[in-house]
Amino acid sequence: MIFTEAERAYLVFVALGRLATIGPDGAPQSYPVWYRVAPDASAIDVGGTDLLASQKYRNVLGDPRVSLVVDDVAAEPIGPAKQHGRGLEVRGSVEILHRDTPLIAGFSNEVLRIHPRRIIAWNLDAPGYHSRDVSVDSSA
Amino acid sequence: MIFTEAERAYLVFVALGRLATIGPDGAPQSYPVWYRVAPDASAIDVGGTDLLASQKYRNVLGDPRVSLVVDDVAAEPIGPAKQHGRGLEVRGSVEILHRDTPLIAGFSNEVLRIHPRRIIAWNLDAPGYHSRDVSVDSSA
Repeated sequence: MIFTEAERAYLVFVALGRLATIGPDGAPQSYPVWYRVAPDASAIDVGGTDLLASQKYRNVLGDPRVSLVVDDVAAEPIGPAKQHGRGLEVRGSVEILHRDTPLIAGFSNEVLRIHPRRIIAWNLDAPGYHSRDVSVDSSA
Repeated sequence: MIFTEAERAYLVFVALGRLATIGPDGAPQSYPVWYRVAPDASAIDVGGTDLLASQKYRNVLGDPRVSLVVDDVAAEPIGPAKQHGRGLEVRGSVEILHRDTPLIAGFSNEVLRIHPRRIIAWNLDAPGYHSRDVSVDSSA
């Protein structure tokens, strides 16, 4: 899988992220989204109610590049720098998938599957920011 | 001011947002950011540590258009639809401001001042999504 075990566990724990897309005018748009880590942990599936009618769906048809940020403020400080903020940003491209069942009850059967290209994590596996390029093909 | 009283109070309450910018390749990037509502409530000031060395700073020099999403999950359901999610998205353009003092202790003296062009709010003043165009010039 392309996520470390700490990242995967954190993604499962938080479940609420913020997705940024490119609007028709080329400017960014952003929204809170509920997501799930894909079964093989190589992608993230973003769901929504009435997804095909949403602006985010129209946006990714126009430009599939997105950024998903998942973060929170930990109760206890992390590492020697005593930081509370932790999280990760996943940049990648979206593929539209149709599922037999909704990702979450009440959601559409379609999901935006994010194939990560770059992952930036902070204060998860280790203090500080850690950025790396990833691709599904080359991942173990 | 361009925000409703409920929006302004909510922005002050949450204080942590997620900012989306356009990267050098035209793809979106996003990050958690601490912000403050500007004194006249016509703008939002986003701060950071070592802001001038950050990717978000370089990005807004290249394209000043940003989106800031501020949201949370309320403990009690809101309105007849029993929704828990609430928040707002502010789309606008950034101006770099130099302050005499940091926005927040430990931050740089520079801030990214977001001048809103469009505000989308959900489950704050009223149930559901409410979108409107705003401009500083025409606001009361």
